[in-house]
Amino acid sequence: MPRPFLTRSEEKVSVGAIKNARHPFYDHCHQALDQIKHQGRYRTFTPLARQAERFPLYEEAVRDLPQGREVIVWSTNDYLGMGVVPEVQDAAIAAIREHGAGAGGTRNIAGTSPLHTQLEAELASLHGKEAGLLFISGYVSNQASLQTILTSMPGWICFSDRLNHASMIAGIKGARGSQTVIYEHNDLKDLEEKLAAAPKDAPKLIAFESVYSMDGDISDIAGTCALARKYNALTYLDEVHAVGLYGQEGGGVSQRDGVADQVDIIEGTLAKGFGVHGGYITASAEIVDFLRSTASGFIFTTALPPPVVAGALASVRKVRAENWRRESIFERVNTFRHRLRAAGVPFTMTPSHIVPIPIGDAERCKRICRRLLTEYGHYATPINYPTVPQGTERLRLTPGPFHTDEMMDDLINALSVLLREEGVMPARQAACSAA
Amino acid sequence: MPRPFLTRSEEKVSVGAIKNARHPFYDHCHQALDQIKHQGRYRTFTPLARQAERFPLYEEAVRDLPQGREVIVWSTNDYLGMGVVPEVQDAAIAAIREHGAGAGGTRNIAGTSPLHTQLEAELASLHGKEAGLLFISGYVSNQASLQTILTSMPGWICFSDRLNHASMIAGIKGARGSQTVIYEHNDLKDLEEKLAAAPKDAPKLIAFESVYSMDGDISDIAGTCALARKYNALTYLDEVHAVGLYGQEGGGVSQRDGVADQVDIIEGTLAKGFGVHGGYITASAEIVDFLRSTASGFIFTTALPPPVVAGALASVRKVRAENWRRESIFERVNTFRHRLRAAGVPFTMTPSHIVPIPIGDAERCKRICRRLLTEYGHYATPINYPTVPQGTERLRLTPGPFHTDEMMDDLINALSVLLREEGVMPARQAACSAA
Repeated sequence: MPRPFLTRSEEKVSVGAIKNARHPFYDHCHQALDQIKHQGRYRTFTPLARQAERFPLYEEAVRDLPQGREVIVWSTNDYLGMGVVPEVQDAAIAAIREHGAGAGGTRNIAGTSPLHTQLEAELASLHGKEAGLLFISGYVSNQASLQTILTSMPGWICFSDRLNHASMIAGIKGARGSQTVIYEHNDLKDLEEKLAAAPKDAPKLIAFESVYSMDGDISDIAGTCALARKYNALTYLDEVHAVGLYGQEGGGVSQRDGVADQVDIIEGTLAKGFGVHGGYITASAEIVDFLRSTASGFIFTTALPPPVVAGALASVRKVRAENWRRESIFERVNTFRHRLRAAGVPFTMTPSHIVPIPIGDAERCKRICRRLLTEYGHYATPINYPTVPQGTERLRLTPGPFHTDEMMDDLINALSVLLREEGVMPARQAACSAA
Repeated sequence: MPRPFLTRSEEKVSVGAIKNARHPFYDHCHQALDQIKHQGRYRTFTPLARQAERFPLYEEAVRDLPQGREVIVWSTNDYLGMGVVPEVQDAAIAAIREHGAGAGGTRNIAGTSPLHTQLEAELASLHGKEAGLLFISGYVSNQASLQTILTSMPGWICFSDRLNHASMIAGIKGARGSQTVIYEHNDLKDLEEKLAAAPKDAPKLIAFESVYSMDGDISDIAGTCALARKYNALTYLDEVHAVGLYGQEGGGVSQRDGVADQVDIIEGTLAKGFGVHGGYITASAEIVDFLRSTASGFIFTTALPPPVVAGALASVRKVRAENWRRESIFERVNTFRHRLRAAGVPFTMTPSHIVPIPIGDAERCKRICRRLLTEYGHYATPINYPTVPQGTERLRLTPGPFHTDEMMDDLINALSVLLREEGVMPARQAACSAA
């Protein structure tokens, strides 16, 4: 029977309704979302417009308020604020005027500008490697590189730190035919036992990070590389949360520790310490050429746009040359911790620039963040599952060079009230008992 | 025995040499690259700087020439030249000045600006869907969406067109536990046989494209959706090479054919017809919310930078409103084909804007492109394996609104000479025999 004629809008409703009723995936989405909401881990993204000239001030879009509301943001991963440095902005703007807003093609299809080549050389130089390769994100650089390496020869065994980032896990899991051995987080004894137990002749790779961004701890790169030499494993190091911040030129923890030469592949991002966008790997010329020639996630995707590449190039050069930016962020982080401690606000001490404040419950974590935003005008992202394990929900604060003492005091005052009201800190004792 | 002291540069060489000798992956890279070179499919990226004000003119970086050499590019995927439209550039520049060069965080970690939300709503509206979701690329939108959908419930069967893009294949292959059935390219008879043979109750998905960009053919979306209704399959349509160009507002072939309502998920890009960067899906509110809440490749990655989002938003709005851009590209393509035919230059006729010129041999294809560039100042990317099957190597030309009649004649004259010299066209007959 032919379908009766429907007007366009009737048809839309009707087809939508039939579809909704018919394919089980629609029901699945509905139920999965219900469950996520029931577990308190449904995410709503707070619309925040960064104000370049007043960073770390943002404007929160508020209904019926044309101008938005001013908010101080403590969660940015643009750790050094490089994305709002005038020279970085100017480089990006000049590239738009000269070359346009997009690359117009894959790297192979007219998408490789001299800027791309220069940035790859700059990143190789930063890490003391022969070559660099840009990806459209840090996520894709990990996923595509690890998956391609681990399917390149038969029998690969990947030794992966238990807390590795989702992008590394995606690449490792995606490498069908390879074997994965997860070792306990930053536990070299466990790693060595597992390396020793593996077949001697199997090609091995150790995948790990320098700064683990949710806990803020730092791995022993030299120790890991020593094990890699002993058991003949390739080393793949994610320096995403370290580049720009650690090492005499911002080459990451491997540069700070003087062991970059011992790491086979160093992966990084242009979107955090360098404040722009995109990801990369650096390694020997042949490894880079191999990944350039074979990694699907590199080959079949539009090249990074000229403004991103030009902005990142300006940023990397500036960050390498200007050590005061690194000194500034660590001074700010130390001052912040000192003031938190003085106010009795609990936080996890870390050897990095990350300041986690443990909360331990998804709903409470979200509520504290929401109240912090609406009642006090400070924004800190609630970090819940699946980003961290359930039961370890937290605020994750990243103070930077642009956060003033006054901003810190204002935030800490707000946290003191909220964490007491929400039962994270004990209620304030009477003044006399403090003596 | 402790390692002897080495200077920094000695150490670098030494460690590099040890590593090169030791881990079998270094040898593997060397051998794999040798093989790729031996097969004539080693790629070198021609460094081409797009000249925004003179598009489709680019500058080729040439050693010892500070200014570069002027080249006319015929391979861009910025089909309409939107990346160099002043309003698009201005929107991107304004966003850099106002918000900075990067987003500074994931969508959940202060990376969602009102611009992101507006662009998602604009794209949903373009395709007549309830909601849209931005990804950092078209590649990632396909890979992350398909992999997440196909692992959401047990027993998924994905029916995938044989010529689907690498990014769809990556998502489908990455969905462990699901089953894949490949049907012959654009062959609905084969698709129906395979749907009919599958278990009735298994959740099914049909993944296909509208414009297949390497061959330039177009799928039967209405016919595919009719089969999807008959066999209760979800439909996932990649409109990457169609958005901006087809349909009364550039909503793609599904809009042109009036069948967008029948497609469950429409995927597109902001990097081709819209000239900027990034990818997206549009679908029902619940499907979009489900993918937003569960797709690893969406969650764990820095949001698109403000200039990309602002530029894309300006571009989509302009492309929707200005139909003359679509009329212009198809007029240019028709004119180009007419002139190719008049000159006797072979090309594959397609129902789309893509003009393939078959060559059929990787080395010859690369040589023709190189000579076209160095001897005539025209650039067309050689399309070789793995982008197309071996034996079907080609030039792939995408004339657009900015290519003039004179540019066309100049290219066609060059091709007439080169294709004869390289044995692709028969040698020119003597004038007398043409009568």
